[in-house]
Amino acid sequence: MCVLSQRALLVGRRLGWAVPGSQSCCKLGSRGVSHLSKAMRLVQFKAKGSAVAPRIGLEEKEGGNVIDLNAFDPSLPKTMRGFLEEGDAAFAIAKRAQESGQHVLPRAEVSLLAPITNPDKVICVGMNYVDHCLEQNVKIPKEPIIFSKFPSSIVGPYDEIILPAESNKVDWEVELAFVIGKKGKHIQEPDAMSHVAGFTVAHDVSARDWQTEKNGKQWLLGKTFDTFCPLGPALVTKNSVSDPHNLGIRCKVNGELVQNSSTNQMIFKTEALIAWVSKFVTLYPGDIFLTGTPPGVGFFRKPPVFLKRGDEVQCEIDELGTIRNKVA
Amino acid sequence: MCVLSQRALLVGRRLGWAVPGSQSCCKLGSRGVSHLSKAMRLVQFKAKGSAVAPRIGLEEKEGGNVIDLNAFDPSLPKTMRGFLEEGDAAFAIAKRAQESGQHVLPRAEVSLLAPITNPDKVICVGMNYVDHCLEQNVKIPKEPIIFSKFPSSIVGPYDEIILPAESNKVDWEVELAFVIGKKGKHIQEPDAMSHVAGFTVAHDVSARDWQTEKNGKQWLLGKTFDTFCPLGPALVTKNSVSDPHNLGIRCKVNGELVQNSSTNQMIFKTEALIAWVSKFVTLYPGDIFLTGTPPGVGFFRKPPVFLKRGDEVQCEIDELGTIRNKVA
Repeated sequence: MCVLSQRALLVGRRLGWAVPGSQSCCKLGSRGVSHLSKAMRLVQFKAKGSAVAPRIGLEEKEGGNVIDLNAFDPSLPKTMRGFLEEGDAAFAIAKRAQESGQHVLPRAEVSLLAPITNPDKVICVGMNYVDHCLEQNVKIPKEPIIFSKFPSSIVGPYDEIILPAESNKVDWEVELAFVIGKKGKHIQEPDAMSHVAGFTVAHDVSARDWQTEKNGKQWLLGKTFDTFCPLGPALVTKNSVSDPHNLGIRCKVNGELVQNSSTNQMIFKTEALIAWVSKFVTLYPGDIFLTGTPPGVGFFRKPPVFLKRGDEVQCEIDELGTIRNKVA
Repeated sequence: MCVLSQRALLVGRRLGWAVPGSQSCCKLGSRGVSHLSKAMRLVQFKAKGSAVAPRIGLEEKEGGNVIDLNAFDPSLPKTMRGFLEEGDAAFAIAKRAQESGQHVLPRAEVSLLAPITNPDKVICVGMNYVDHCLEQNVKIPKEPIIFSKFPSSIVGPYDEIILPAESNKVDWEVELAFVIGKKGKHIQEPDAMSHVAGFTVAHDVSARDWQTEKNGKQWLLGKTFDTFCPLGPALVTKNSVSDPHNLGIRCKVNGELVQNSSTNQMIFKTEALIAWVSKFVTLYPGDIFLTGTPPGVGFFRKPPVFLKRGDEVQCEIDELGTIRNKVA
């Protein structure tokens, strides 16, 4: 810190002042203003040895070091839901932290959690890829099919998927997910993207027996076992993504490519899904949408293939990253 | 306050001490120990003129004055979910507040909210009354049928139900609800009741078109419109209820009795539901179960009857109370 005390600088930044020295002081000299447009990868993390979790951070790049936003500004909420509820003010602080080059934790000292936990809603979309509908020989839906998982099913990007004793038909589904950043009801499509905070990778783990044969054909139980919603690695802010509806999306099981498509195959895109679901419910910051899976799931293979203990599933989407979950 | 300062008394009570004078001081002399076994009706409320909501309180009786637990002990959480997460320690404080006769707000200064908001899960059970299955001419299920509402559908005991433009088949369903007080997974039936904090009245408002005809027959959307889950008036602690599975349960629309049964008609009772659902998911404090509805819903009437603007629905269960919601 060059001239101002760190405390004064923090207070000034928090209040949105143009704090002298914050762009030009010793730690920032070589980076300049271009740094402002750098992709923002928001994460929830646990610092090794710290009892307090989660904390909010910025992953410098996928797998890179993490800027501790709660250390940069102790008044920031320590959950992503709280962070998103603060809206633009929180994003402005994150941007200043990113520029500051301060409070960077070496990656080895950090464990990533899911970028969002405890949302009001995990909203899932069924049969939302043209190629996945063709695979199942079902008509392309005229309206989105919406189901849900309980928030308790969410786990981190590198956590284990626990195979439940109750199912022997546990299947993979890589999905593009987006997270709501601004409350709204009856949102119109042209305004929908203003309600999105960013995008992440989701794995909609699915017990096909419970989804399709049991529970009165209500999908919920088959979709919501504990650990059936790995998310991450980061919430990539929307302005960091070139075109969310034209990204390569892939799933690998033990390194073998089993799903390989593009989000351009989505039938109902982000804007349409927000407009549709917000007819029914108020959307809140932190609500997460899982937007459906492309073809290649195990259930429709001949013969069907399901996950077994020891498998490793990799779900990856261009520009967002890869989550890796072992099956235990 | 007789001998000890109020502050010292509060601290002592908080620490669980047998504080001298707490049973026998001037404000309690006439009530004695029998007061300890009084029913405990926990509520979330908004104090008129206060910007801070919710607060946690105890309704002295249905419709009676409310003891402000957050005023009695400012360290108590201000949400029911937070209160329940504190477990026995929070209940012990509530009991002492009940005994104290202090911090009683006149009912006119209080608006009740739903007794639980923002839970991780709103778990609903379909076709769980013998007489409701007979009414529909469907087989009695061999396993519980589980679906869900989003927490955003919860409203208070006297709030309005907003009729959505998207449906003209909105129906009533009175239901016994119970709230989880202790985290658990794979809970066995004999241990299940130890995970219950208490019981309340729920109205599982249902848009039958969206539940049964649309959305790929997934019930979620028809069940989860905003305002489709009135709850309350209070969370009645389990030791205050004589037998939760033998209570009169009724629904009246504009004063006309339309549902009239007993919770002894439930197919899967509290213990069985907890054992079942906790095979799939970890239950957390605040999770709420809506345990299904008896016969008499509008959908199965000949001709069918649905709610319209201006109707008032009263859902009532013996020993728990009545919620009254106008349709707007």
